[in-house]
Amino acid sequence: MPNTAYVTNVRIDDPFWNAFRETLVREGIPYQWEALNDRLSEDTEPSRCMRNFRIAAGKETGEFGGFVFQDSDIYKWLEGVAYSLRWHPDAALEAIADGAIQTIADAQQPDGYLDTYYIINGLDKRWTNLKDHHELYVAGHMIEAAVAYYRATGKRALLDVAIRFVDHIDGVIGPEEGKLHGYPGHPVIEMALMRLYEVTGDEKHLRLAAYFVNQRGQRPLFFEQEDERSGNTFYWKNSPFRYQYYQAGRPVREQKDAEGHAVRAMYLYSGMADVARQTGDESLARACRDLWESATRRRMYVTGAVGSTEHGEAFSFDYDMPNDTVYGETCAAIGLVFFARRMLQLAPRGEYADVMERALYNGVISGMQLDGKRFFYVNPLEVVPEACEKDPHKRHVKPERQKWFGCACCPPNLIRMLASLEDYSAVQGDGTLWLNLYIGGGIEADGLSLTVETRYPWEGGVRIRVNGPARRRLALRIPGWCRDWTLSLNGKCADARLEDGYAVIDREWAAGDVVDLCMDMPARYVRANPRVREDAGKVALQRGPVVYCLEEADNGKALHGLRAGDIASAEAKWEPETLGGVVTLTTDGLREAQDGWGDTLYDFRDAPDAAPVRLRWIPYYAWANRGVGEMRVWVRA
Amino acid sequence: MPNTAYVTNVRIDDPFWNAFRETLVREGIPYQWEALNDRLSEDTEPSRCMRNFRIAAGKETGEFGGFVFQDSDIYKWLEGVAYSLRWHPDAALEAIADGAIQTIADAQQPDGYLDTYYIINGLDKRWTNLKDHHELYVAGHMIEAAVAYYRATGKRALLDVAIRFVDHIDGVIGPEEGKLHGYPGHPVIEMALMRLYEVTGDEKHLRLAAYFVNQRGQRPLFFEQEDERSGNTFYWKNSPFRYQYYQAGRPVREQKDAEGHAVRAMYLYSGMADVARQTGDESLARACRDLWESATRRRMYVTGAVGSTEHGEAFSFDYDMPNDTVYGETCAAIGLVFFARRMLQLAPRGEYADVMERALYNGVISGMQLDGKRFFYVNPLEVVPEACEKDPHKRHVKPERQKWFGCACCPPNLIRMLASLEDYSAVQGDGTLWLNLYIGGGIEADGLSLTVETRYPWEGGVRIRVNGPARRRLALRIPGWCRDWTLSLNGKCADARLEDGYAVIDREWAAGDVVDLCMDMPARYVRANPRVREDAGKVALQRGPVVYCLEEADNGKALHGLRAGDIASAEAKWEPETLGGVVTLTTDGLREAQDGWGDTLYDFRDAPDAAPVRLRWIPYYAWANRGVGEMRVWVRA
Repeated sequence: MPNTAYVTNVRIDDPFWNAFRETLVREGIPYQWEALNDRLSEDTEPSRCMRNFRIAAGKETGEFGGFVFQDSDIYKWLEGVAYSLRWHPDAALEAIADGAIQTIADAQQPDGYLDTYYIINGLDKRWTNLKDHHELYVAGHMIEAAVAYYRATGKRALLDVAIRFVDHIDGVIGPEEGKLHGYPGHPVIEMALMRLYEVTGDEKHLRLAAYFVNQRGQRPLFFEQEDERSGNTFYWKNSPFRYQYYQAGRPVREQKDAEGHAVRAMYLYSGMADVARQTGDESLARACRDLWESATRRRMYVTGAVGSTEHGEAFSFDYDMPNDTVYGETCAAIGLVFFARRMLQLAPRGEYADVMERALYNGVISGMQLDGKRFFYVNPLEVVPEACEKDPHKRHVKPERQKWFGCACCPPNLIRMLASLEDYSAVQGDGTLWLNLYIGGGIEADGLSLTVETRYPWEGGVRIRVNGPARRRLALRIPGWCRDWTLSLNGKCADARLEDGYAVIDREWAAGDVVDLCMDMPARYVRANPRVREDAGKVALQRGPVVYCLEEADNGKALHGLRAGDIASAEAKWEPETLGGVVTLTTDGLREAQDGWGDTLYDFRDAPDAAPVRLRWIPYYAWANRGVGEMRVWVRA
Repeated sequence: MPNTAYVTNVRIDDPFWNAFRETLVREGIPYQWEALNDRLSEDTEPSRCMRNFRIAAGKETGEFGGFVFQDSDIYKWLEGVAYSLRWHPDAALEAIADGAIQTIADAQQPDGYLDTYYIINGLDKRWTNLKDHHELYVAGHMIEAAVAYYRATGKRALLDVAIRFVDHIDGVIGPEEGKLHGYPGHPVIEMALMRLYEVTGDEKHLRLAAYFVNQRGQRPLFFEQEDERSGNTFYWKNSPFRYQYYQAGRPVREQKDAEGHAVRAMYLYSGMADVARQTGDESLARACRDLWESATRRRMYVTGAVGSTEHGEAFSFDYDMPNDTVYGETCAAIGLVFFARRMLQLAPRGEYADVMERALYNGVISGMQLDGKRFFYVNPLEVVPEACEKDPHKRHVKPERQKWFGCACCPPNLIRMLASLEDYSAVQGDGTLWLNLYIGGGIEADGLSLTVETRYPWEGGVRIRVNGPARRRLALRIPGWCRDWTLSLNGKCADARLEDGYAVIDREWAAGDVVDLCMDMPARYVRANPRVREDAGKVALQRGPVVYCLEEADNGKALHGLRAGDIASAEAKWEPETLGGVVTLTTDGLREAQDGWGDTLYDFRDAPDAAPVRLRWIPYYAWANRGVGEMRVWVRA
């Protein structure tokens, strides 16, 4: 099994991503710190997150506030801060982070335990509800923050806290008699421990991660026994999901379909892939491939959203992709990016990077308002604001991003995703460097130093300059969306082999070498597999990796009455002043008359008259930045 | 304001309806009596209904079982039995009914009160939750049963029980100081009291009905005050409906849109129309017309189903008609028939009868399996069984009828509707007889005696024989679906005026006169108003009043991949052995290839290849009688 590492020495300087990331450090990170300290405006639900730590540390009195997993928000924020400090040093921010870490450390118990919910509400109850009380989830996010902060700053304070907590966990959970033979209801600690292992080299950390993965779903079911022992409620008793809500109804190697809560699924599969890679476990890698194929070939939206149903924020079944009642949580799309990167590390194949790119440029960044201050939890592909307001069956779908959430998982997840974008652009191993994302900046990998210049995703040209000599296979991903491309080396047609979705140049590189990848990037209509009921007879519009949508702001109301015309009519236009700078598309279309029926509801009439119209499309990720209105990705053909 | 009465002297002998009604007396009525006595199979939820009465009467001990409105089931059953005895005398059944009535009478309290929930659980709590505890709803159904049973059998036992209960209610609720200024959370008592008034002529009964209607939604809101006083829970506090869930957020004359729980709405509007007619209240009649127009011109499915959302089993908003998540409760379609008949009594207009017919032949009888033993609560227009099973967001939609329900409102409602079909066929007044439904049998109205022969809804011919001389205007409804028709009198073209949807013959009738109405009944594609998002680009198929659907049993899976072809290709065929005898339709269509995409989920492809296919359509009401499978009413054009 190839063991491919992601490239850590990456510098991003890219016209597309710079804007998002500057918003992040300028607005998102400070805004979310205010949120975690309950200093947002009065109409915003207070987080209580930092307050819980101060209470747990004995510095303040009061009751625990927020969800049982509230601690995770500060950890995700700290992880994001850590990543941002790598490319945007900020002493003041680092000082705030250090202070937060001190507060966290102060709350840690002498035995290493650290979860403010139980510290405040009574330690006697801890470890009695792994299924729903998120102690291991909180631990996982602490570990991820600790590793990131240590790597970014060299400071060990949080890392030491995390290692002590892991030692405590290792004393409580494991295969040995007298320990709980359990695992987390909400995965994340698996991949976190694998990152910790990379830093510590402590086999215990690898062992514990593998235990959580391998023990999951084994008979007798731990969660079932735990419920009996502790008298916990089984919320999914009457759901078709039951323990598969937690991906814990069967051993992971027997799980063939992506099932249950979509974020949990993505996090678990990511951890499974990490363990498979590190331990060379082919049966586990096989399970990862099965679950990947289920999730991405039969259960993923064209935007990279996953989780078709609001019930359980979960996967439903193959080809079930309702556009207006979808869940498509921002965190789940982020989780899909995590999973994709790890699949690339198991085997660099263009397919994985295609999905990663699809999620990143669409269903991930749609989660954040362009000003970085409002967020989507749910990312629908079709919205009629009146329905969100008046049909509570669609209550989870919001026509505008929200300031904050009681359950604020998505905003800090966006921070840590976008702030660590570096880690997703390339993987290396066996003398090959695979470029997966085309993002401007610099990459240093095993002696090969590259500079990347591009206006991707708006233009299909990528120029790669080699900064020094090296012998190395350079694998440039040819995206799945790309039908026509040319590759040149120093101005001449390059000698490249196509392997698993990559154009590979194998040569002795010299300083000054220039590789030009030119990808033809026309707007094209996408169709869904005919088994997708909701998209039958409809098309989506895509250009490069960017999926487009129609908004009421551009096309008026009643988007359901619009029909997409000949793709040959498509025109792309770079509009620097629109939505932070986007390529908009226009196409010929038809607008069916909405009027003329008066009070008649049903009649034996012909199809409504349709008048030619020019449709104006914007990138899906940028929808709902111009007020509340209808939006639609899949349009009648 | 015209005050038009429905014709009570009607005898049905009709090839279409006889089958339903024979099933009713042979299977439905006995089956439901078993259900009400908890004698169905073990996997069926017990009703506890009759047991509650025995406990309340002190003949048995135990706790109250079922919903707070469980009493209503026996009343609805008794009402249905009463209607059936009019056309199907059955001494044994009448004896069972008399026994049930005795049990009910035994449970009545000395002060006239009768609701087993409070008798068993404590009378001190009665009348503290008119909003949700259904005492007036139960009383309403008791009154309806009592009037029906008295009219059918001449027996007063239940009528006397009801009158005593109404006297009790009149002592507790009303405008006078010291009484509760309340009204029912679930209407029905309004129309029940109006029927009681017709029998008793007691002005008190009319006054109480009018009070419930006029007091509803007045400020200060009774339900709000009641919640405060009694500490009741307000379940709809965070719903956009709030008190309009109960149609009680505003005075009824200020309600312009059909809102909230659809069955409650239909029952309230029916009562309003009754009060408006009896009291000549034009402002109330105006409110009825507004609500009628909202419900039927902007919020009704092509099957006559109403209630677009599962949340609150309720109306949502104009033109919001999702086909796969619809509620469309059987009781609501029945309620729409009630409302339509009362609108006809306010003003005989074809529009009202068109809606009545649409509901009756489609969304009402779809509620019952052809064998009379299983029932739909929810009547969807598009079903994929896998979605019902695997996406709990569609949990309320069932792909097959159920044996019984814990909340068993629909089965006995179907009995009382179909057993009293006589009362919906014609109205009379001012020297005119309006024929609204074409059902074979006999009609006696004010000296005019008619015999009707027809094979409606399968054939468009109706022959009416006049049995004796009379001066009378005979108004024959020309259905909204009918474009071409001829009317002849004694074999010659009849001299008729078209008035409000009726062809009116005004003459001195003689015995032996024969009127022939010949309605051309081709299959036609229906389109929905373009504002209906879910039906854009789709057609339904209708022939006469019958709406058709595609089923998997005839057309295979993946009905979303079928497209309807030229209507000129439609062929109708009478199939006596199919589904109890129906006219099936076949049309040309296209079947889009479902295969050939392999594992690909999204691609830049053309529309899938489509092969000619002959589509086979069955009447919507008969769906789900041949096992579980896909079904679809609206098909891509």
